[in-house]
Amino acid sequence: MFDFTVDTTSGCARSGTLELPHGTVDTPCFMPVGTQGTVRALSPNDLRAVGATLVLANTYHLHVRPGEEVVAKLGALHRFMAWDRPLLTDSGGFQVFSLEGFRRVDDDGVEFQSHVDGGRRRLTPERATEIQWTLGADIAMAFDHVVPGDADEATARDAMERTLRWLARCAKRHGELADGRTGGRAVSDGAVVRPSASPPIRQTLWPILQGGTHRALREEGLRRILDMTSWTGLAIGGLAVGEPKPVMYAVLDALAPRLPPGLPRYLMGVGFPEDLVAAVERGVDLFDCVAPTRNGRNGSAFTPDGPVNIRNAEHREDPRPLDASCDCETCTTFSRGYLRHLFVAEELLGLRLLSLHNVRYLIRLAEDMRAAIRRNAFGPWAEAWRRRYLRSGPA
Amino acid sequence: MFDFTVDTTSGCARSGTLELPHGTVDTPCFMPVGTQGTVRALSPNDLRAVGATLVLANTYHLHVRPGEEVVAKLGALHRFMAWDRPLLTDSGGFQVFSLEGFRRVDDDGVEFQSHVDGGRRRLTPERATEIQWTLGADIAMAFDHVVPGDADEATARDAMERTLRWLARCAKRHGELADGRTGGRAVSDGAVVRPSASPPIRQTLWPILQGGTHRALREEGLRRILDMTSWTGLAIGGLAVGEPKPVMYAVLDALAPRLPPGLPRYLMGVGFPEDLVAAVERGVDLFDCVAPTRNGRNGSAFTPDGPVNIRNAEHREDPRPLDASCDCETCTTFSRGYLRHLFVAEELLGLRLLSLHNVRYLIRLAEDMRAAIRRNAFGPWAEAWRRRYLRSGPA
Repeated sequence: MFDFTVDTTSGCARSGTLELPHGTVDTPCFMPVGTQGTVRALSPNDLRAVGATLVLANTYHLHVRPGEEVVAKLGALHRFMAWDRPLLTDSGGFQVFSLEGFRRVDDDGVEFQSHVDGGRRRLTPERATEIQWTLGADIAMAFDHVVPGDADEATARDAMERTLRWLARCAKRHGELADGRTGGRAVSDGAVVRPSASPPIRQTLWPILQGGTHRALREEGLRRILDMTSWTGLAIGGLAVGEPKPVMYAVLDALAPRLPPGLPRYLMGVGFPEDLVAAVERGVDLFDCVAPTRNGRNGSAFTPDGPVNIRNAEHREDPRPLDASCDCETCTTFSRGYLRHLFVAEELLGLRLLSLHNVRYLIRLAEDMRAAIRRNAFGPWAEAWRRRYLRSGPA
Repeated sequence: MFDFTVDTTSGCARSGTLELPHGTVDTPCFMPVGTQGTVRALSPNDLRAVGATLVLANTYHLHVRPGEEVVAKLGALHRFMAWDRPLLTDSGGFQVFSLEGFRRVDDDGVEFQSHVDGGRRRLTPERATEIQWTLGADIAMAFDHVVPGDADEATARDAMERTLRWLARCAKRHGELADGRTGGRAVSDGAVVRPSASPPIRQTLWPILQGGTHRALREEGLRRILDMTSWTGLAIGGLAVGEPKPVMYAVLDALAPRLPPGLPRYLMGVGFPEDLVAAVERGVDLFDCVAPTRNGRNGSAFTPDGPVNIRNAEHREDPRPLDASCDCETCTTFSRGYLRHLFVAEELLGLRLLSLHNVRYLIRLAEDMRAAIRRNAFGPWAEAWRRRYLRSGPA
């Protein structure tokens, strides 16, 4: 269930509440990425402390290591990673199409090479659905064919058509699993799929819209997805994969009036602060990105005045917090000088403290946007936010 | 001030309470090591959560990077590393004598090569005292000359005699600093030393007893230290530096009846669980060691049944906690299977969770020993502890 209100002062910014088996998610929402069943350098307590509600984990990575059967034996994904709030698993599509190494696509699925042991593996819409069922997240994603941001229309159409055919197969298998029609019996490739919790959680499956940067394809894809069945949410994939930002915004602008208002909209793999603001302005509700943790590990911190590189010598004796307006442990406890020391001295605590701050920054940005929308003032809020954040030019 | 009680059921185990400017330390006490102003992979909140009271930081490392003047500008060591409980700094002696690279000793001090930039630096008893004054820990250590565990008597005597001469110089300079006689003025090598907190903390200086494995030297050194002035604590250095364990225990046995009961006794660089129990049995009160964090980062965990290597395949699907008797976040939250996954997948959270558990294990071990001593039952407690811990042979 998704209740929402729309701001009238700018674009079509929305604020809503999404009910999921493990709890409620307020939107706009940024989800931290726990690729291997852990948000890098952060603990579940850290994630709760920074206000995370929905966390993403990667089906491809967990399938390859430790394997979904191991996760199931350890109590399914929530128990495995000790996260008691909502979880979303991606389908593995993005990974098998973006990781280096061997890959062969046919209509049945994708054969690829494990980045861990180099072994050949195969994902199909059915297997991706079964693996996610076994992992047991609140939201599972359909298996999709992702193409690069500069793919021509023929390539993008081919991948979109395949993604639509795969979507029907994902939905069919997910329905069978949810109905218990395959409970405990081998369903494909000899794997045994069991309900991942008792009582089984009401996992929901979301489709992914592809179509590259081609608006007509995107519009057609959206119509065909919506014609297929009724969904509880919808993801926009294949953006932020190398295309220029104005092109991404143009696709979102084209989609905004056509997206059914009652479905939460998840823009996959986005993003940086300015991208979140621009996408919320265009009606997007949910986001995920590794930027806050990856950049944090590199010493780069988000602040209201733009990114700060904590390694810079200017911070050496600076007693001020990283971000004076931030309520996270990093900013309320440590000086910039100490944080710089941790990075220069290659101390593990530095990686954690900047990751923690960056995740809190994006979650707080989403909270601020929500508050602005709730008081019907998103337009002026976004203008003021950009004036400050982009003062020294885009990051 | 140090109040204590002695157990009568085994050796001379003691339990006491040490009052320091930043708080009270119950003994026996294990102090985690924050080499560069951070206990590796752990935050101050983590350290409070595992019950740490006294934390050690390394003068050599902080002098070389970021430099004590930077620490002072960021509010001195407590504020710098956001640790509001007692701190102890070592003197740098152990590091300059144990790190690789160039080193030249004369009676004035030691010239050595920085491990960070390769530059030549010099430490003297006065400089080591001034640096520690600037850092502002509760307890400063005297600058000492450490020799390897297999040093012959002549070598050990030479180093002990030098350490005694240096101790007098450390005490003189510390007294001047504490009396404010040099406050704000250049005291040596052109450096300016300021009281590190306002009002200045009552930092105390502890001597370090050297003498290698030679009991007569140790006994003579102890007499000469005690004849010098009255101290508030005493450290035993130059043990656990390569000599066999029975040799270390023999030195402790020889010293035990000669140590003044009213001074807390700090055995530097020790140690592993079995060493703590053996040393408490011989009247030692305080310990520090990097083992819990270093071993934790290598996937090795202390448990009541001996060490466990979490990387082992046997833990792959094990839903049990690392240590069922432990109250730390790691053991109350995660399965062995998940912890193994974190190590196999090279996730940062694994390094932190095992470090956290190992520090908690040693602090709880000290707490357990304290409780046993308080009920005058240390002898049987130690016997039962060893029976379980060493069941599968010494670690």
